Amino acid sequence: MTESIQTYLETIGHNARAAARQISRAETAAKNQALLAIAATLEAEAAFLIAENQKDLEAGRQSGLDSAMLDRLDINAKRVKTMADGLREIAALPDPVGEITGLTYRPSGIQVGKMRVPLGVIGIIYESRPNVTADAAALCLKSGNACILRGGSEAIHSNKAIAACIRQGLETAGLPADAVQLIETTDRAAVGAMLRLEHAIDVIVPRGGKGLIQRIMEESRIPILKHLDGICHVYIDDRCDPDKAIRITLNAKTQRYGVCNALETLLIAEGVAPTLLPALAAQLRGKGVELRGCPRTRELVEHCVPATEEDWDTEYLAPILSIRVVADLDQAMDHIARHSSKHTEAIVTEDYGRARRFLREVDSSSVMVNASTRFADGFEYGLGAEIGISTDKLHARGPVGLEGLTTLKFVVLGDGHVRA
Amino acid sequence: MTESIQTYLETIGHNARAAARQISRAETAAKNQALLAIAATLEAEAAFLIAENQKDLEAGRQSGLDSAMLDRLDINAKRVKTMADGLREIAALPDPVGEITGLTYRPSGIQVGKMRVPLGVIGIIYESRPNVTADAAALCLKSGNACILRGGSEAIHSNKAIAACIRQGLETAGLPADAVQLIETTDRAAVGAMLRLEHAIDVIVPRGGKGLIQRIMEESRIPILKHLDGICHVYIDDRCDPDKAIRITLNAKTQRYGVCNALETLLIAEGVAPTLLPALAAQLRGKGVELRGCPRTRELVEHCVPATEEDWDTEYLAPILSIRVVADLDQAMDHIARHSSKHTEAIVTEDYGRARRFLREVDSSSVMVNASTRFADGFEYGLGAEIGISTDKLHARGPVGLEGLTTLKFVVLGDGHVRA
Repeated sequence: MTESIQTYLETIGHNARAAARQISRAETAAKNQALLAIAATLEAEAAFLIAENQKDLEAGRQSGLDSAMLDRLDINAKRVKTMADGLREIAALPDPVGEITGLTYRPSGIQVGKMRVPLGVIGIIYESRPNVTADAAALCLKSGNACILRGGSEAIHSNKAIAACIRQGLETAGLPADAVQLIETTDRAAVGAMLRLEHAIDVIVPRGGKGLIQRIMEESRIPILKHLDGICHVYIDDRCDPDKAIRITLNAKTQRYGVCNALETLLIAEGVAPTLLPALAAQLRGKGVELRGCPRTRELVEHCVPATEEDWDTEYLAPILSIRVVADLDQAMDHIARHSSKHTEAIVTEDYGRARRFLREVDSSSVMVNASTRFADGFEYGLGAEIGISTDKLHARGPVGLEGLTTLKFVVLGDGHVRA
Repeated sequence: MTESIQTYLETIGHNARAAARQISRAETAAKNQALLAIAATLEAEAAFLIAENQKDLEAGRQSGLDSAMLDRLDINAKRVKTMADGLREIAALPDPVGEITGLTYRPSGIQVGKMRVPLGVIGIIYESRPNVTADAAALCLKSGNACILRGGSEAIHSNKAIAACIRQGLETAGLPADAVQLIETTDRAAVGAMLRLEHAIDVIVPRGGKGLIQRIMEESRIPILKHLDGICHVYIDDRCDPDKAIRITLNAKTQRYGVCNALETLLIAEGVAPTLLPALAAQLRGKGVELRGCPRTRELVEHCVPATEEDWDTEYLAPILSIRVVADLDQAMDHIARHSSKHTEAIVTEDYGRARRFLREVDSSSVMVNASTRFADGFEYGLGAEIGISTDKLHARGPVGLEGLTTLKFVVLGDGHVRA
């Protein structure tokens, strides 16, 4: 069985590599036509998608998935339309492929510039939400990449149905259907086999829980675009506008709890903590947020649990906030350097010099002044869409859109030039 | 012993991480002052450097290094000056750190842009040539990175002497000496220990033979900026200018043999092979180049050895050239897709459409029209200097200069903005 899965994956890898060469040179118009055709097919086949999705929902109910999981799995008419609209939005974005920048003459007489090109074959491993099948395929297609999709077993019927629509749309536009391939077995060995396709897959994008991503990091020798944790900080400086500090903290912590750009640790300057923290804490508690504080915080805030060392390194993804009173900006940045997952950090200050230092010195994928960490998102940043968020330093960092799915190559134009 | 080496490396890693935070926020003027102070120190200490280098040369002679190796190891007054001049050139380059691009307002009211920032700590593992110690340290310093240097054991005295000058120059400029640390043991276990410093080192740059790089790839979980092979192709199209074809082929193959951007396989269109190949082959043979050809090549060229399948996948780094006659551009690009190491490929053609297709469709780090593959080089491309050449797709591709040693983070400027 394992051997036949390996063979199956190798065939998929081989087909993807061949399709990647074709899709990399496809005209922008053909790629857009395919995206629109896929959108139309999804809408035309809505009844089929919903029927297939029912099989997954039924199996999910029987295997005891909780209601949040079942909701994420659910496809209804409105969600089909959202998927189709997402594809149309990606069709409307500029094509990043082929742009040449910086083409200048060198003293030798050659012209040198850089051309933006697709990465090749993207492998995407994701859980439950079947709309990722359409989103991820669309981003890869528009950026000229082939993709291999491995969705969660609980969504297999939904994913197969969506993938069938995608392949039909590709064929309508005269593009190779193998540019988007779904792994159709739910055997868990398929992930391992996929991670061994070093020669066929250029980048793996894992989307899911920390356990999934850690497993992929351990097993894969293929480069990964990922983030593991979102331990995001807000630092309230003593030269802040208190209203902005409260508004930003509440939004960053409570607008949504289970997201990677939510606030997890609040740092607040000693100079402003006694006046600001009690009121802020009351509002947070009013929203049902559990507070865990350093000793100084507990002097200022009622009903505050002691924070342990572990709290500073924990991504709660829940209505819990750890709070530490710090002496100043330097101590705040030291705390961030030690405990941040390098996802997103924000300072609240009206002091120009401190804002400038925070922006420069904090080493995270997004660094903000007087704005909620919740803005760290491809749509909010104007990328049009995102395939994920990277906290790695190489290649793409922060929300990853079409540009992050491309790379640059040098182009050299000569007229018989040789090196002296 | 191994345990103490691991501890030694961990201390180095810890120091590097601390120094990286300081050097990342150093003013451009301080970094340039350090580079100029290092240059001055190297020149002032030339006698010391040469004396220390003599120890390495003596040991090298006794251990039977060949004359080419001894020449690469040698430091004389002229080479000290070249090293110092290299540092001054890097001081004169623009500082890439802190540049903010694309800062625009979003519909939400926040401003979003990208800031160029250092990678953090670079680990460089290299062989024999001691000037790499100065070059690599200077590139890392200018780009705001700390570095950990592991040179070859045959150059240990030379490297220690150069590193001492570098640390003195850093201190003169008020920068932390630990921004540049040389591993002072020649124990081979140090490389393994270095590759385990996942939390202290952001990127490994291996410079050396294929064996070294393969070993590092196998052992390291730290991202690597590297190239393994340089199997470069020139394709001579039937619509070429024959003079340019001959000039470019001769330069690409014979200007230097042991370099990664030298030509290894010549592809030539059937339409022009009978008229062009005999004359070209004669000139190559006149320079002492051994020719290995496909059956059609051997019909056209005298004294041509049969090329095996293995030849198409071989980087000779020697006066040997494999030659294949192809039907057309498509067959040439198929051959390249199959056998290229994705380093550098060139087409010789006067046909606009074919040049355009070759530029777009060939997936290598440098793609050229009517120019010698030998141009694939950081200096020739105007990067000022290079730390290496990458054939990987993520992050930096092609010659890697200061920009390749940096990454981008998102910066967000708000005025109390929260997400709706």
